[in-house]
Amino acid sequence: MDFDTIAAISTPMGEGAIAIVRLSGDQAIPIAEKLFKSKSGKKLSEMATHTIHYGHLVDPNSGQVIEEVMLSLMRGPKTFTKEDVVEINCHGGIVSVNRVLQLVLNHGARLAEPGEFTKRAFLNGRIDLSQAEAVMDLIRAKTDRAMNVALGQMEGRLSKLIQRLRQEILEILAHIEVNIDYPEYDDVEEMTHTMLLPKANHVREEIKKLLQTSQQGKILREGLSTVIVGRPNVGKSSLLNSLVQENKAIVTDIPGTTRDVIEEYVNVRGVPLRLLDTAGIRETEDIVERIGVERSRQVLKEADLILLVLNYSDELTKEDENLFEAVKGMDVIVIVNKTDLPQKIDLERVMELASDYKLVTTSLKEDQGVDELEEAIASLFFEGSIEAKDVTYVSNSRHIALLNQSLKAIEEAIEGVEIGTPIDIVQIDLTRTWELLGEIIGDSVHESLIDQLFSQFCLGK
Amino acid sequence: MDFDTIAAISTPMGEGAIAIVRLSGDQAIPIAEKLFKSKSGKKLSEMATHTIHYGHLVDPNSGQVIEEVMLSLMRGPKTFTKEDVVEINCHGGIVSVNRVLQLVLNHGARLAEPGEFTKRAFLNGRIDLSQAEAVMDLIRAKTDRAMNVALGQMEGRLSKLIQRLRQEILEILAHIEVNIDYPEYDDVEEMTHTMLLPKANHVREEIKKLLQTSQQGKILREGLSTVIVGRPNVGKSSLLNSLVQENKAIVTDIPGTTRDVIEEYVNVRGVPLRLLDTAGIRETEDIVERIGVERSRQVLKEADLILLVLNYSDELTKEDENLFEAVKGMDVIVIVNKTDLPQKIDLERVMELASDYKLVTTSLKEDQGVDELEEAIASLFFEGSIEAKDVTYVSNSRHIALLNQSLKAIEEAIEGVEIGTPIDIVQIDLTRTWELLGEIIGDSVHESLIDQLFSQFCLGK
Repeated sequence: MDFDTIAAISTPMGEGAIAIVRLSGDQAIPIAEKLFKSKSGKKLSEMATHTIHYGHLVDPNSGQVIEEVMLSLMRGPKTFTKEDVVEINCHGGIVSVNRVLQLVLNHGARLAEPGEFTKRAFLNGRIDLSQAEAVMDLIRAKTDRAMNVALGQMEGRLSKLIQRLRQEILEILAHIEVNIDYPEYDDVEEMTHTMLLPKANHVREEIKKLLQTSQQGKILREGLSTVIVGRPNVGKSSLLNSLVQENKAIVTDIPGTTRDVIEEYVNVRGVPLRLLDTAGIRETEDIVERIGVERSRQVLKEADLILLVLNYSDELTKEDENLFEAVKGMDVIVIVNKTDLPQKIDLERVMELASDYKLVTTSLKEDQGVDELEEAIASLFFEGSIEAKDVTYVSNSRHIALLNQSLKAIEEAIEGVEIGTPIDIVQIDLTRTWELLGEIIGDSVHESLIDQLFSQFCLGK
Repeated sequence: MDFDTIAAISTPMGEGAIAIVRLSGDQAIPIAEKLFKSKSGKKLSEMATHTIHYGHLVDPNSGQVIEEVMLSLMRGPKTFTKEDVVEINCHGGIVSVNRVLQLVLNHGARLAEPGEFTKRAFLNGRIDLSQAEAVMDLIRAKTDRAMNVALGQMEGRLSKLIQRLRQEILEILAHIEVNIDYPEYDDVEEMTHTMLLPKANHVREEIKKLLQTSQQGKILREGLSTVIVGRPNVGKSSLLNSLVQENKAIVTDIPGTTRDVIEEYVNVRGVPLRLLDTAGIRETEDIVERIGVERSRQVLKEADLILLVLNYSDELTKEDENLFEAVKGMDVIVIVNKTDLPQKIDLERVMELASDYKLVTTSLKEDQGVDELEEAIASLFFEGSIEAKDVTYVSNSRHIALLNQSLKAIEEAIEGVEIGTPIDIVQIDLTRTWELLGEIIGDSVHESLIDQLFSQFCLGK
């Protein structure tokens, strides 16, 4: 395909030693050549592919030195986009990198849209859609495990599974086609049904298996939304701090909002906890009172996991009981904190209230019980399966939705066979299953969907 | 010199398309070779310098694929540190880049200290101290002009000036030495004085010229600390927003504090305004009341520029007059805002109060007067000199302090000559001038100073 030449800042914004402005397209090298004065004096267009060059960017209009840079030259098709790519490594300051970007934009490159580099890799046939989506998942991965899932998907593990399933369906369809075209025998219909059923069942089981990984896959990809609740002074801040300190905390500043929404990710044994309204806890140590009942309930609703904290050294109050009421039916771990102080809580009543949940006692002050809590969190969501190494997790909501639809389609096909529906109706359901699976890897998807998917990427990828 | 091999993340932290882990030292290539499986199957150590290679990082212990990477190989001495350098370009996610860093640390690299790469460039003799310092200034530059100052310094413009001055002093010293060694003529002393005076005067003038650029240089480098003051409801937020919107605002999240200290930089015609306590204004629209009188005065004291806002459509109050009292003797621009509303303010009295300051009338609501305000800000600090292209600005506090000390030393030498002090005393002052200037470029500086200087760098540089 033939595209114009795009450019974008490909490193995170902020201060660092190095930043990269990336160009891709058939004008990438000519544009860079106009601006780059190599130390050696050689021309860029005469240099070999996959080589690095030291020199300066000079504005050809004013003769002004814009930056001192290292320039990486990579000719297509052995590049990320399969096009010619030039990466300009400049100093990692905000002004510096913007100024380099501005220069290349002023000399013929177009500012890339978010995800446009990856989109080209897809459109130029280097990767399929699920692999492209994995690129973003990999960048946003919050834990090692999440990254392994994304890396596997990027390397095409999911794609291969999907392709194999589609191949199986295609073979069934081919078989049906043959039988429809040669209906000279009476028992064709029956034979077809008999042959078809185990094959369709197999496809169904494979789709089901993939879907079984999806809850865990989604948690790995998006993090486990976690809310800490409890009356004032039960130790919510301490719990937060101890989770953050013992584990690698990753603070993500959501772009677009200047300072309000800061999410904190904590990596608990490979499970990324996304702590909601952390700032609220930090500031007032009283989320429930501060944000009011209405807002609290909303926060609770968004949560995958509730950590409900009680005070071992205080009597249960009506407020505690109300909290149990509010979290009914959710995934809850009850934490009885402050066991370093004398007991005042009615433990029997707590056990009764917490009968459906895991219960952990802690003295956060004395660093007791945190291990047990982490164990409880990890096992709640990854019981047993956590060590399985070769699982291909499905983590992307779009994939999950498509798998659910294909499951429904293949089940309709199977039901059709079982009740003796004419084979050409069954064929429609099978074809639909084949198409839906194809959408996962980007076969037969609408252009508008592709645009929308890639627009969720970060700039420069 | 001989150092161990260091590694660090060299791109800003955050989510982006690409991140870089950089290694430097004589084990850089052997370490990378242990971990890197190139697509082509070739060994890293056999590859040419300044080439780029696609492949995977694989943990040699577990065989697990850690990341898909592009690896840049650069053999010393034509590198940033003059040592062998390997740059690993991986996906720009927090987990991804930390995992790559961990892998190289587990296989023989040591985590670099902040600034250690640049320190090596200095210790290995590729750049001098003022050039090394300019690297950090360049990264932290808030405006184009500031970046040009840093770029010039990095290219060695200041170094060359300093070296020239030192050369002049050295020639005087040599001359004195000769005369002292051959005192066969009676009038040696006098001759020496006559010869010495114009030369020393020239050195003094050059140092003075450099110091004259320093106020502006410092502003360009560090930003102009600016405080907006005024009674509630005079339009402080509107002023802030209009400055931020009309200009490129750079929000800098100071590392180490999670969310409280956020400074906002606004680029007004090349002058970086560092807006103090912006959050305070944003939140309450009443900085003076909110932070209390004591704290206000402190904020005022830190400021290079005060923007004092009055309400055109309200009478002057005691509070307004108090504000004028509080900012006495500082650089102030008085802004009479809300000219879209009927006049109630006593303009004559305002003129009287503001007689020492620039006065601008605005209607921020109707976007009137903002240009005049920006003009006033720019001309207050860069009157006349702003267009001078070839000025070498001295911007670094350490350099300014050393220049001030050398000025004092050369003046003492000159005074000594004038009052007929014995030449060997004059010689001491001259030598001291020569040494002090040398410290700017890193000749004869203490190791502890070097350590301290580089520790202010960001990681990975």
